[in-house]
Amino acid sequence: MTSTFEREVLVRFGHCDPAGIVFFPRYYELLNAFVEDWFYDGLGIDYATLIGARRVGLPTVQLQTSFERISRIGDRLMQRLWIERVGRSSLTLRVSFDGADGTRVSFGQVLVCTSLDTHQSQPFPDDVRAALVRAVQQQQSSEQ
Amino acid sequence: MTSTFEREVLVRFGHCDPAGIVFFPRYYELLNAFVEDWFYDGLGIDYATLIGARRVGLPTVQLQTSFERISRIGDRLMQRLWIERVGRSSLTLRVSFDGADGTRVSFGQVLVCTSLDTHQSQPFPDDVRAALVRAVQQQQSSEQ
Amino acid sequence: MTSTFEREVLVRFGHCDPAGIVFFPRYYELLNAFVEDWFYDGLGIDYATLIGARRVGLPTVQLQTSFERISRIGDRLMQRLWIERVGRSSLTLRVSFDGADGTRVSFGQVLVCTSLDTHQSQPFPDDVRAALVRAVQQQQSSEQ
Amino acid sequence: MTSTFEREVLVRFGHCDPAGIVFFPRYYELLNAFVEDWFYDGLGIDYATLIGARRVGLPTVQLQTSFERISRIGDRLMQRLWIERVGRSSLTLRVSFDGADGTRVSFGQVLVCTSLDTHQSQPFPDDVRAALVRAVQQQQSSEQ
Repeated sequence: MTSTFEREVLVRFGHCDPAGIVFFPRYYELLNAFVEDWFYDGLGIDYATLIGARRVGLPTVQLQTSFERISRIGDRLMQRLWIERVGRSSLTLRVSFDGADGTRVSFGQVLVCTSLDTHQSQPFPDDVRAALVRAVQQQQSSEQ
Repeated sequence: MTSTFEREVLVRFGHCDPAGIVFFPRYYELLNAFVEDWFYDGLGIDYATLIGARRVGLPTVQLQTSFERISRIGDRLMQRLWIERVGRSSLTLRVSFDGADGTRVSFGQVLVCTSLDTHQSQPFPDDVRAALVRAVQQQQSSEQ
Repeated sequence: MTSTFEREVLVRFGHCDPAGIVFFPRYYELLNAFVEDWFYDGLGIDYATLIGARRVGLPTVQLQTSFERISRIGDRLMQRLWIERVGRSSLTLRVSFDGADGTRVSFGQVLVCTSLDTHQSQPFPDDVRAALVRAVQQQQSSEQ
Repeated sequence: MTSTFEREVLVRFGHCDPAGIVFFPRYYELLNAFVEDWFYDGLGIDYATLIGARRVGLPTVQLQTSFERISRIGDRLMQRLWIERVGRSSLTLRVSFDGADGTRVSFGQVLVCTSLDTHQSQPFPDDVRAALVRAVQQQQSSEQ
């Protein structure tokens, strides 16, 4: 299945631990940056304005991770994102970070749309919903 | 069920994001530090020597997380750890970070014992296995 | 000269890099946590409330660092803090992280009191100023 | 004076603190990544191999920082690097991160070439020295 968004990332010195491989919490920083990139460059939603001026939050509520292979400094990982489900106020993603030898890490992530004033869930704003629906349609048509 | 190890942690400024709540990758840094504390203070295993001189790794291979309630700067969380299963070369843990209003985050974590020279899995060293078995027995006896 | 506040910290796996020593940006996370501890436990100021409800910021504006010796996983560092100068809206600190073999890192840090609404500098609130002045007096009397 | 290397970076959600601005330790992660990029893309030195297979370290020994203006999520900073001095085993850099309103942060950084086996300083390897000297010459010729 074709992913809806891809971007390469370099494994840096600062991602790696005394074992010489990526320290697993750093993968979550990469995941968050990748989802951010998807909003800016895939969905066309200004993430900074969404969080800042518009006070819309997107906290993660569920996250499953399989660490399948190790990554080392200097590795270039292809990050790939698939939309699994768009709900009224929640979004389920599948993300993988792949190296030359196969998937290094895969994530199943559920995000919820919240108000940053109340931290309560709320429906996605119309423009975000429209962009998500469009992305799902493109993903489905590319699968056929 | 009584946890096998507990430790309080302070939510710091540096853990929190522009939404004023813990940035989720920081929870994984806290998780790793907590498991480290458990080795030192619960199991009586010198984690630094294990990783360093003894070249034994404990990478995480599976991790499930539920982010149930938000945490803010200044919150004091009780971190609790249960051993779910001790295998020949793997260890399954359940960890929760609890606030006054209930569990904030809960983790199901599978770690594997590896050689840091080959990054291949290997059986737990005898002293680590003995400490884990002892901890499981204590956990079970406290449940009765 | 006797420091005004001290606290031990453990060098953790997650602080260290593929060279097996503390990755220098992690020292700044430790520095920030240490200054935070000083506010809570040395000055008796609730840092979380200061930043949160009271909307008072304490950004760093100048920072000089000497990395003098390396630190490794498992090292226990004594963190020490001296007040160099208390101004109307700024504070100059000297901090060192010391190991058994001497100072590992030393910092000269200038912080400024700001409003988190405008990000402009403002005089220290009265209670913070009073606590700082008291700490300076204690530091001076202990030097005699 | 023309910088010897430049690269834009996006201020991300994960860089920012509850005050809504970059948490200062994150600037040091950005600094380290930027110097890494300079090695790969400016100097043409494979940083991962240098650190990994070749066991050459480049720890920072002195670092002066001026935090001049705040940065917020979504800001795009131009990172600029100047070589101040190339010694036998040390390197002095000046780096600035600039926003539309001027310099946000500037760094004066001294790095030392070490052996990762002994953590003692050593002369730069010939290829690294040659690349540094070439970069200094280009920087000087562009200044005239």
